[in-house]
Amino acid sequence: MAESPHGLDRRDFLTAALASAGALAIGTPAWASATARYPAVRKAAEAQREAAIKRIQDWIAHPSIAAENLNMKEGAEYMATLAREAGFDSATIIPTDGHPGVFATMDNGAKRTLALYFMYDVKQFDPAEWSSPPLEARIVDKPGFGRAIVGRGAVNQKGPEATVLAALHAMRAAKVKLPVNLVLVAEGEEEIGSPHFHQVVQSPNVFAALKKAEGVFIPASWQDMNGSVAVNLGSKGVVELELIASGEKWGRGPKGDIHSSMKAMVDSPPWRLVQALNTLVTPDGNTAAIEGWFENVRPLTAREKELIAEIARNGDEATQKKLLGVSRWIDDLPYPKALERLASQPTVNIEGLVSGYTGPGGKTVLPGRAVAKLDLRLVPNQTRKEAVEKLRAHLDKKGFNDVELKVTGGYDPTETAEDSRIIRAELATYKRAGVTATLNPRLAGSWPGAVFTAPPVSLPAGHFGLGHGSGAHAPDEYYVVESTNPKVAGIVDAVMGYVDMFYQIAEVK
Amino acid sequence: MAESPHGLDRRDFLTAALASAGALAIGTPAWASATARYPAVRKAAEAQREAAIKRIQDWIAHPSIAAENLNMKEGAEYMATLAREAGFDSATIIPTDGHPGVFATMDNGAKRTLALYFMYDVKQFDPAEWSSPPLEARIVDKPGFGRAIVGRGAVNQKGPEATVLAALHAMRAAKVKLPVNLVLVAEGEEEIGSPHFHQVVQSPNVFAALKKAEGVFIPASWQDMNGSVAVNLGSKGVVELELIASGEKWGRGPKGDIHSSMKAMVDSPPWRLVQALNTLVTPDGNTAAIEGWFENVRPLTAREKELIAEIARNGDEATQKKLLGVSRWIDDLPYPKALERLASQPTVNIEGLVSGYTGPGGKTVLPGRAVAKLDLRLVPNQTRKEAVEKLRAHLDKKGFNDVELKVTGGYDPTETAEDSRIIRAELATYKRAGVTATLNPRLAGSWPGAVFTAPPVSLPAGHFGLGHGSGAHAPDEYYVVESTNPKVAGIVDAVMGYVDMFYQIAEVK
Repeated sequence: MAESPHGLDRRDFLTAALASAGALAIGTPAWASATARYPAVRKAAEAQREAAIKRIQDWIAHPSIAAENLNMKEGAEYMATLAREAGFDSATIIPTDGHPGVFATMDNGAKRTLALYFMYDVKQFDPAEWSSPPLEARIVDKPGFGRAIVGRGAVNQKGPEATVLAALHAMRAAKVKLPVNLVLVAEGEEEIGSPHFHQVVQSPNVFAALKKAEGVFIPASWQDMNGSVAVNLGSKGVVELELIASGEKWGRGPKGDIHSSMKAMVDSPPWRLVQALNTLVTPDGNTAAIEGWFENVRPLTAREKELIAEIARNGDEATQKKLLGVSRWIDDLPYPKALERLASQPTVNIEGLVSGYTGPGGKTVLPGRAVAKLDLRLVPNQTRKEAVEKLRAHLDKKGFNDVELKVTGGYDPTETAEDSRIIRAELATYKRAGVTATLNPRLAGSWPGAVFTAPPVSLPAGHFGLGHGSGAHAPDEYYVVESTNPKVAGIVDAVMGYVDMFYQIAEVK
Repeated sequence: MAESPHGLDRRDFLTAALASAGALAIGTPAWASATARYPAVRKAAEAQREAAIKRIQDWIAHPSIAAENLNMKEGAEYMATLAREAGFDSATIIPTDGHPGVFATMDNGAKRTLALYFMYDVKQFDPAEWSSPPLEARIVDKPGFGRAIVGRGAVNQKGPEATVLAALHAMRAAKVKLPVNLVLVAEGEEEIGSPHFHQVVQSPNVFAALKKAEGVFIPASWQDMNGSVAVNLGSKGVVELELIASGEKWGRGPKGDIHSSMKAMVDSPPWRLVQALNTLVTPDGNTAAIEGWFENVRPLTAREKELIAEIARNGDEATQKKLLGVSRWIDDLPYPKALERLASQPTVNIEGLVSGYTGPGGKTVLPGRAVAKLDLRLVPNQTRKEAVEKLRAHLDKKGFNDVELKVTGGYDPTETAEDSRIIRAELATYKRAGVTATLNPRLAGSWPGAVFTAPPVSLPAGHFGLGHGSGAHAPDEYYVVESTNPKVAGIVDAVMGYVDMFYQIAEVK
């Protein structure tokens, strides 16, 4: 949700942050050798290719949008049906105080269990901004990649999720029993910040099933143009919020916008906001000055520093600066130190300022209200709850108890151990496919994974998948189904990536 | 220009600022006695009423908009033709480095000369926002006032200006020679801040003609629902500007918006802006903290304080607070002190803040640019030039030389002596018409009058007129032509107001 703003999705971010660093494995794709292990499944996947593409297109045609309360019940049913059709033994709707989740299991009599995290909702869209209708899921050319489905949800996350389902269909058609048991948990509120997903995960049957799992992943298709992927050992948390100064709450200044000449006798909510903001960070704007902010911040471990040093060594600083339009890092830090700062430091970021007249030129008003949109990135062991409480206490202590704090979304940070089976299985799968995988100690972005990684579930969690797509939350979102780039997987190779991952989970020590 | 933002025009401001205070004269309208003095002119004005209304409508149908470079040459020619038709001896186009002005004279062999300031341009408009087409100038009912022309320029300023022209037509039809000579100077750039009007005023012939005048006024129709008007002895100046912090100019932070997770290693232009803003005012946001700001500020005189005290005594503080949506003044000042602050203090006002994502909810970006729109109100003897220079020097000294300062418009403050003939003539005219006139030492708003009041022209200048209109710069701008409110002049009574003003200028001691 928070991580995929328009035009700047997870993958773009990773491309920029990691450039084309190859930290663990270097090589050319080895689709052939990887898939040679499962010839019957590969054959079935190829035979079912059109059906797999159509499954994605049909799903895209049925959008569920939590923010608009659109097709939520229908979306959960659709998800449950997709799970049943893919061979899950049972698929049930899990009600929450918000929109329902879906829970499904597939007992294959295996020793180990793998959990999958799906979302059935998609981001809002404005068809006027798209070059083809966002629910039609047309297949178009994407130069440098091949042919791709364009539609809302194509990459975030119906395409990758349906590719996992296609792997299950192919294995069943090939009469190959999965080497792992599966637990599927899906939510319909990812795009509004997963406010009730913890209720799904902690409902007794789901909780009991998850507790048996080695780990959980959300299917993803993050291969860049060179075929590389990142494996993140955790992610920062985030709190998105608005700070609002207003005449209404302050008891000073106007309730609405008035003529600016009155400033000589009337107080100003935007100046109030500027004063409040000014207390939140050090004078350079780079470090939180909120009381107690660093109390629970865990410093980087030696291993984390080692991984970052490796990313820095393999990274392309000049390219990253160019992609970001940045000429120097904070404090003119050298690249390795800047990357350490990226992984280790919580942030207080202004994502937007809005007050009074915002159009071209000027308009002489004294605004009745001023809003700063902030996002606070959190690192272990900070929590979202702690951050909101400390910010409120700070504002109150500084005398800004009239400044409203409206939280609009957020997640706790996540951590997944490098030696967990799911990470080792991911790395082994990528390696066998000849894909360069970069081990990243902490994604500077955020995702709802803390629902799994934090107590009481305490499960290793991450993203996994071959393939490529982009444009999450933006117009012309796409997911590559037919790859013309030898380093990037098309849909059948992505299917085979999931198949191999099931085996790696079963086999890894 | 700056003084008539959408929905908050000069009159609304005055209504709010002065409430219904009646400081100099109290009484009921005396149209009858006022116009009984000029029976032949009144008869002619009544006979020409439809023609006078049509003159306004025709003018509205031909908009000149400087910001859009629309019909500027045509507008100047139209203005010159209107002047000639109204009996001016000559009307010539005065070229400038921008759009042309118009200069006309009418030598009536009188002892005294009166100057008129007209603008032929109008504010931009969006027909979609209007309830009738803005160039059709339809006549509609305005409850509480009567029938009014609705159109762009109706009140700002074609309606009032054409009413002066109607007075000249009526006097000519009645074969009554004007008791004063007239000088007319018009500009076409009022709505963009009069950037070249000084070139019109200081061109040799215009300058020589103005130097003979007793004073200058722009026709206005500011009667409120009770018939009251304000007579301002000056106005504050204003500088409208944008302060812009950007990665582009700073050399830190991103050039465009990037993913907000990068905040941990990339500097932030919006935080840079907040820091710069924070240095501009005292912690309460109410007093400029810019070095040398008060150096040339002239304190209120005893007479100015006396007039303000009178306004405070007659004013309705509770109503004004209610109209403004304000529950207390700055520093909890009592009303008379708050009004002194209004008249005497320069201001640094934030009229708008814009950065990054400004829509509903959040979007995780680190913006490449942040803009604060400010207006600085100036009092005598501050100047616009001084203010801009001091603000720039202040920012540089504080280390913010990368923060851009983009001036978008402004005027110097104006002052007009209470004992000038034009002010005394205005007061006498209002008194004879039975209209409550409030003498206001200084309008807290601003207008281009400094072009006249400052050297080298050094002419008393103000606003004068009976009648009512509103909605300058807003949709459904209107000008009352047929009044059903006994305290407010319709077009014929407004015509007679100008006629009487000509005599008052001639006769006042």
